[in-house]
Amino acid sequence: MEEHEISKAVVKRLPRYYRYLGDLIEARVERISSNELSRMMNVTASQIRQDLNNFGGFGQQGYGYNVKYLYQEIGRILGLDKIYSMVIIGAGNLGQALANYVKFEKRGFWIKGIFDVNPRLKGMTVRGIEIRMTDELPQFIRDNQIQIAALTLPKAGAEEVVPILIENGVKAIWNFAHTDLNVPGGVVVENVHLSESLMQLSYNLNHTDL
Amino acid sequence: MEEHEISKAVVKRLPRYYRYLGDLIEARVERISSNELSRMMNVTASQIRQDLNNFGGFGQQGYGYNVKYLYQEIGRILGLDKIYSMVIIGAGNLGQALANYVKFEKRGFWIKGIFDVNPRLKGMTVRGIEIRMTDELPQFIRDNQIQIAALTLPKAGAEEVVPILIENGVKAIWNFAHTDLNVPGGVVVENVHLSESLMQLSYNLNHTDL
Repeated sequence: MEEHEISKAVVKRLPRYYRYLGDLIEARVERISSNELSRMMNVTASQIRQDLNNFGGFGQQGYGYNVKYLYQEIGRILGLDKIYSMVIIGAGNLGQALANYVKFEKRGFWIKGIFDVNPRLKGMTVRGIEIRMTDELPQFIRDNQIQIAALTLPKAGAEEVVPILIENGVKAIWNFAHTDLNVPGGVVVENVHLSESLMQLSYNLNHTDL
Repeated sequence: MEEHEISKAVVKRLPRYYRYLGDLIEARVERISSNELSRMMNVTASQIRQDLNNFGGFGQQGYGYNVKYLYQEIGRILGLDKIYSMVIIGAGNLGQALANYVKFEKRGFWIKGIFDVNPRLKGMTVRGIEIRMTDELPQFIRDNQIQIAALTLPKAGAEEVVPILIENGVKAIWNFAHTDLNVPGGVVVENVHLSESLMQLSYNLNHTDL
């Protein structure tokens, strides 16, 4: 299957397709029409056809989509057919919440280590994953060929640790710190700014007809 | 100041303006031009002028923006000039991470209670906030006029609790469960789907020239 440049908006919608298709597989559904998928997902059928046509069109007239095939192909496009080595930096509640989430491993994201600056946490484990001190980070990244780092620590610490991550080969940062990180080209950042999401909620609460 | 219908894209950018303006206030900056703000935020100055013109245009030719005034106005538009009563449902790591985040209170989001179904957590506190059992929820929501509920529990529990929340007057749901919630008109939902965000990261990791 060939791929051309895909718009950001489509990429943003892919994980949701992936989630629904995964649910369908669990429910042992083998094929589905764009109209049925449309009702389930509450988007128009033409949007679905258009989105999926970006990848060559998985559907067949009168048959619909093969659920398992579509699930696997979207997974492949999202890069979920590979294994990634990941570290979590910041062993507070949020870091531990991520470490405890087993589904990440099922999807190919292997958490290899958790790091913190607090010496009292040294040697403790979360779901069998050891908490190490941040000064061990450079060696650990190189030894374990870590590609992804999740930053679940305060802003100042996050900004300090980023150059160390990049120098040692990390290519992707999942950033929960409330700051926009400066990274060179070729390093990707995905931000999860929780307080900004809460502000959006309060905006909508005030601007929706209740 | 008058307000007209503001596009979703602008609303999504407002919290980021708010964050940068807050940093400027801390740094005791009193006014700033759109060009300076543009360099800081890494967006074009014309984008900034266009976005802020939605609210009547806060800038003055040759003077720039009054930082504190703009901060307050954007805060007001986002609904941060009010106080909200909030509950967290699910006292696992993620729920505790939210409960521990004191900045929410500074912004007007008061966490009144944390709820869980696990009886072993009953009566424990997180930052002084008591963990209660989910069966106390209806009474608690009504007594405390809870407007916002954060759902940090698994999918099935989230879907079960939503009707209870809505029946008792909750108007806004901050949803961390991996499911799209069904809510009636007039109830707003903001989703934080962490695994979808991680998939976006892996997509970008595979489609960026490294």
